Amino acid sequence: MDEFSLIQKYFAQLTAPAGDVLLGIGDDCALLQPPAGEVLAVTTDTLVSGRHFPVETAPYDIGWKSLAVNLSDLAAMGAQARWFTLALTLPEANQTWIQEFARGLSDLAAQSKVALVGGDTARGPLSITITAMGTVPAGAALKRNGAQIDDVVCVTGTLGDAALALRLLSESDLSTDLRARLDRPTPRLAAGLALRDIAHAAIDLSDGLAGDLAHVLDASGVGAEIYSARLPSSLEFKKYVAPTDALALQLQGGDDYELCVCIAPEKFDEAAARLAVFDVSLTSIGRITSETGLRFLDANGVTIPLAPNGYRHFQ
Amino acid sequence: MDEFSLIQKYFAQLTAPAGDVLLGIGDDCALLQPPAGEVLAVTTDTLVSGRHFPVETAPYDIGWKSLAVNLSDLAAMGAQARWFTLALTLPEANQTWIQEFARGLSDLAAQSKVALVGGDTARGPLSITITAMGTVPAGAALKRNGAQIDDVVCVTGTLGDAALALRLLSESDLSTDLRARLDRPTPRLAAGLALRDIAHAAIDLSDGLAGDLAHVLDASGVGAEIYSARLPSSLEFKKYVAPTDALALQLQGGDDYELCVCIAPEKFDEAAARLAVFDVSLTSIGRITSETGLRFLDANGVTIPLAPNGYRHFQ
Repeated sequence: MDEFSLIQKYFAQLTAPAGDVLLGIGDDCALLQPPAGEVLAVTTDTLVSGRHFPVETAPYDIGWKSLAVNLSDLAAMGAQARWFTLALTLPEANQTWIQEFARGLSDLAAQSKVALVGGDTARGPLSITITAMGTVPAGAALKRNGAQIDDVVCVTGTLGDAALALRLLSESDLSTDLRARLDRPTPRLAAGLALRDIAHAAIDLSDGLAGDLAHVLDASGVGAEIYSARLPSSLEFKKYVAPTDALALQLQGGDDYELCVCIAPEKFDEAAARLAVFDVSLTSIGRITSETGLRFLDANGVTIPLAPNGYRHFQ
Repeated sequence: MDEFSLIQKYFAQLTAPAGDVLLGIGDDCALLQPPAGEVLAVTTDTLVSGRHFPVETAPYDIGWKSLAVNLSDLAAMGAQARWFTLALTLPEANQTWIQEFARGLSDLAAQSKVALVGGDTARGPLSITITAMGTVPAGAALKRNGAQIDDVVCVTGTLGDAALALRLLSESDLSTDLRARLDRPTPRLAAGLALRDIAHAAIDLSDGLAGDLAHVLDASGVGAEIYSARLPSSLEFKKYVAPTDALALQLQGGDDYELCVCIAPEKFDEAAARLAVFDVSLTSIGRITSETGLRFLDANGVTIPLAPNGYRHFQ
């Protein structure tokens, strides 16, 4: 039995076939049924061992994270996640590794109600490419180019935990919870769906707030002021990180996979209330300005000098 | 400028945006418009250097072939090819290589009217994963499980050329045409569309006729007799290969990317006439039997002993 058959076998046990999969794995193509009136949202991301996750990452977490980073892109469009394909390159056939990888992947797939509909395996240094597909009613997708002047800039959850975990990797007192923020990010699918008819623009925070928000500003032709004192931090983050040190992790650390959304000020309360239903916080961290560029202000309103470049892969 | 931006730049020059791409590369997801009443056909294939193509293959041809093998799967479903994503892992940033790769990829994309809608690049040993998407009217897709007893088993084009080219790689008199059969296969998209309402079952020949046809037989719960003397050969193939040697190349050599289809006998002439319009031959090579299993018969009707296993990747 080859690797992909093993993965499939594991999936078959855990994920019931969805009604929108007319034909699953086993023919030349899968056949999928998008709902009438909806358009297809498609994204693809490759994760390479040692570059996108630490080499010693548990296979369960690698499976989870490979899917999570792709679902996060669907979340940022306000799309309903539905299907994905998997291309897995492995240095060797290790059945235990594959089972654990498949378990992490299928746990998130089951939780997110997405179906594995195709894939391929190859021999080589460990890397995973997933293409995730979702659907969204025509015209309803959240894009990067819709931010409007005076919008509130908001983020879900807390920032900087993944970057902190990465920094603390070698320390023995790195907690399981903090490590999980790096290894098993939660794609904010429900939040994306809930904010779809409220938010003007959205992006997921994969490379760090500074770089990712800059994409929204560029696409929308606007600027933003971000109030550093408002950046949401977890209790663990506050415990480990001195305030002087927090900003670099929260603005330029990647891998948080929270959503950053721009919302009209009068809609903020409703947006926050919608996310509170499923225990996701929404924090206002700044506002969109007509003056272009991204400015970070300290508690006294003084601009903090900071190059607005997030982590960029493969330069 | 990173590698993917380079590829994108090259694509922008060559492929006009299609009407079914509502939002292309540059946001969290692409947004795509499937036609009303059609379902989505999705396939993904990884090509690894030295495994799926010779390491010395020209980058133009690598780009072409990476897309071709995926489009071939869409062809086998009778789908209209529309979109694809690209994940490219490269050992080094070589601009000339990337441009040539993009040129090969975009030449086939333009010819096949498919749009690049997303992608990612990473550093590592050369491998390419493409996910190709097409659409097909609900209920009209060609599957592997529809072969019926007494159907004619047919193949497009000629068989064995790619396997022969692979064998002759080191020989200086390997012709450009023969080499192209290995390096730049033609996905039979037009043939798949033309046979969609005639054929009962179809598969593309990626791993060799013996193995691929066995999948159709297994899925359909039938068997087949194949008459070896009828297997279509190119003039070059006949020139190089002794008849005693031909069978192994034609039945077990992979990479032909022709279609194998099962058609009611009375429909064969119409099917062949439809393909003749765009210069693709269709050859009847055998018939579907109620007795399961795959039998190859010589010109005297005597069974040829042959294990029905095509080339399998990564065992």
